[in-house]
Amino acid sequence: MADTLGEVGEGATLARIFPRLPDAAAAIVGPGDDAAVLRAPDGRFVVTTDTMVHGPDFRRAWSRPVELGWKAAATNLSDVAAMGAVPTALVVALVAPADTPVADLESLADGLRRACDALAPGCGVVGGDLSVSETLTIAVTAFGDLEGRAPVLRSGARPGDAVAVAGRLGLAATGLRLLFAEGVDAAGHPDAAAAERLRTAHPEPLAAQLSPVPPIALGPVAARGGATAMLDVSDGLAIDARRIASASGIAIDLDAAAIARVAGDGVDPRAALTGGEDHALLATFPADAAVPDGFVVIGKAAAGAGLLVDGRAVDERGGWDPYADWDGRAG
Amino acid sequence: MADTLGEVGEGATLARIFPRLPDAAAAIVGPGDDAAVLRAPDGRFVVTTDTMVHGPDFRRAWSRPVELGWKAAATNLSDVAAMGAVPTALVVALVAPADTPVADLESLADGLRRACDALAPGCGVVGGDLSVSETLTIAVTAFGDLEGRAPVLRSGARPGDAVAVAGRLGLAATGLRLLFAEGVDAAGHPDAAAAERLRTAHPEPLAAQLSPVPPIALGPVAARGGATAMLDVSDGLAIDARRIASASGIAIDLDAAAIARVAGDGVDPRAALTGGEDHALLATFPADAAVPDGFVVIGKAAAGAGLLVDGRAVDERGGWDPYADWDGRAG
Repeated sequence: MADTLGEVGEGATLARIFPRLPDAAAAIVGPGDDAAVLRAPDGRFVVTTDTMVHGPDFRRAWSRPVELGWKAAATNLSDVAAMGAVPTALVVALVAPADTPVADLESLADGLRRACDALAPGCGVVGGDLSVSETLTIAVTAFGDLEGRAPVLRSGARPGDAVAVAGRLGLAATGLRLLFAEGVDAAGHPDAAAAERLRTAHPEPLAAQLSPVPPIALGPVAARGGATAMLDVSDGLAIDARRIASASGIAIDLDAAAIARVAGDGVDPRAALTGGEDHALLATFPADAAVPDGFVVIGKAAAGAGLLVDGRAVDERGGWDPYADWDGRAG
Repeated sequence: MADTLGEVGEGATLARIFPRLPDAAAAIVGPGDDAAVLRAPDGRFVVTTDTMVHGPDFRRAWSRPVELGWKAAATNLSDVAAMGAVPTALVVALVAPADTPVADLESLADGLRRACDALAPGCGVVGGDLSVSETLTIAVTAFGDLEGRAPVLRSGARPGDAVAVAGRLGLAATGLRLLFAEGVDAAGHPDAAAAERLRTAHPEPLAAQLSPVPPIALGPVAARGGATAMLDVSDGLAIDARRIASASGIAIDLDAAAIARVAGDGVDPRAALTGGEDHALLATFPADAAVPDGFVVIGKAAAGAGLLVDGRAVDERGGWDPYADWDGRAG
């Protein structure tokens, strides 16, 4: 299509994007003024920001524009949910090359809307900014409502608590490994046709990597169910479990067989422990409380420090380092 | 200095940046968990986002890192103030080339802190994200507290209202014009030494362009003083006055002599009308109300439509188009 961001210009492009974005039920003043005004019914709000950058975080050859919008929304909604909050709104700063087709930006907006509609109904986009740059970058800031509850921090786990997870483990990392191994051309560069073949051959891990479906609604459920600590598993179960252990001043002992069951068929249990971008919720619950539906117990908190699996200390790092695997070039 | 973002890594760089950032008095949970939690005492909050991208929005050869942090904060604080709100917090998504010295990122954090301390005491940084990319990009989202008041929108001006401005007009555009004309080397590329000479020869317009001081505190003052409409003059007085006229369904008639007085010595009155990045506050006040100290009357609202100067319609566009002057290359 002939019309690109550079040709159409910022104002006219925004006019095409805005009607595609979801409305926020919490908006008192929506987009179009110097700022938006949002409801914060209990006198507080949750805020998080996470950026996706072409190269380290995604490749245009692998991700469709609608998937970029979906994933940018989903990963931020997941951080809101991990506090036990209900997502209310997003603002989106979009920086795109001047030769980006406006149709791609429209698809990206569709992805934002679909993710909000599917994962957090009522959540919408209340503002944004559009700029040009050589590197496609999507910076989303997301807001949530704690509905009068205390936020569920990383620091509240106590010895004896059950450690439970909602969502899949290792599947997104499996998808990324497949893309790096087989989603490339003869020269090793990310390749759209190769990625299409992978989508057909391995739909689950590819979808987990390219358009993840975090269990957003289970964040508030966990909070209501008495969760003592919670986080979004984004850097791998090992790293993120260690974060809860460290912040809470306890040890976490995971059950390898339970992790393998959560990972399921087609996932190397090692990927379930160390792979990143799961966007599962990892939470701890008091030993005497029922773990809410949707959560699976994979271990327990104990006195001590650090991470154990089946009682043995796990010191290796594991997880996704945005710098380690990026060569800054093609894709 | 040897250590760059790529060498030091994300986590260690954040550990060096965080202690330099300002605390937010409104923070219940600050940085370090999946999300922050902020107070919104009247059950609402104001939110705005604005991005600065290397190339269209700034040049490393002209802007010191501390100025980039200052300007990124100041421009967002100005959008909060333009709603009549008191800024409470920022989140900052920073995307920088891997070869960026960590010391530059520390200076950028210092600029964020200095701007908050000077322009909006109590406002602080409650979260952020750090990523690598080839293009330095600073996406700030800012929050504010309306203190129980209605937000001051663009749409509330009525015929007969006084039109008034707080801050300078045309000075930032004059600084940018000087930089493009004389802040370059023989090949026409942005040059740090040439910019240094300009800072000495023309300190006021250079400072207005590189480290603007918007009248943040006057936003809530205007709201308390009965402002019927207000915005942040970022795209030039002509464009932004027309925005109030259009949103309010009125005409705005500006007084050329008053504009020239606000612009002051060394500023072409035409730059005052069409130049961008003033970050002045343009507001309308009821005819029978006293205009608050710090605001200067430059015109009046009338029945009709569009923008007039001394009673004559002004149709030209004017203002700063981020696409028009950018070649995507050096600087």
